[in-house]
Amino acid sequence: MSRFASTTPEPPYYAVIFSSQRRGDDTGYAAMAERMVELAALQRGFLGVESCRDADGFGITVSYWDSPVAIAAWKADVEHLRAQALGRSDWYAHYELRIARVERAHAFDAPEAAAQP
Amino acid sequence: MSRFASTTPEPPYYAVIFSSQRRGDDTGYAAMAERMVELAALQRGFLGVESCRDADGFGITVSYWDSPVAIAAWKADVEHLRAQALGRSDWYAHYELRIARVERAHAFDAPEAAAQP
Repeated sequence: MSRFASTTPEPPYYAVIFSSQRRGDDTGYAAMAERMVELAALQRGFLGVESCRDADGFGITVSYWDSPVAIAAWKADVEHLRAQALGRSDWYAHYELRIARVERAHAFDAPEAAAQP
Repeated sequence: MSRFASTTPEPPYYAVIFSSQRRGDDTGYAAMAERMVELAALQRGFLGVESCRDADGFGITVSYWDSPVAIAAWKADVEHLRAQALGRSDWYAHYELRIARVERAHAFDAPEAAAQP
């Protein structure tokens, strides 16, 4: 499965940029993070997500949405609210969250990479 | 040094969201990536940068700028243009680049983490 949100439409659309530093405690985190991606993908207005976390526990997740209304609805989802509370109480030492309107976008595929299956 | 761009001002400002998949070849990449962060920080209108790359070579870098003009000037920087060309010829299998206007932002600090030096 591609790590890229390659199917986002022509701008404008919206991005939620979430950068975070994990604490050491891993209890339940991986399963919850996976569940949140699954759940986000079911939301109305979801366009895609890109995510990475390095060995130091620093990560960036960018999710893409068709409108601020869709972002607000996802933020207010009951199961997501529970995950947000656990994030603050247990999992994150620090995070920054930004909501942005995507105005321009382009992609690049290396010729060799594009030729591979 | 913080991994966070914690000194960005109140919105609005701009974000360049760059997600990329590295190829296997590492020649010169780390030094160039470090140099580009140093050089970006010297540009007029630069507000900060957050970056991570995981063990699979997938990474997300978000740089923050005060205006589209600042982003355009950085894109056209001669040394940066050379790095962009090497990125396409040597380093990246695929990338997605999005320019977005940050409209809202907030941060969270865990009480324990905040109490640590």
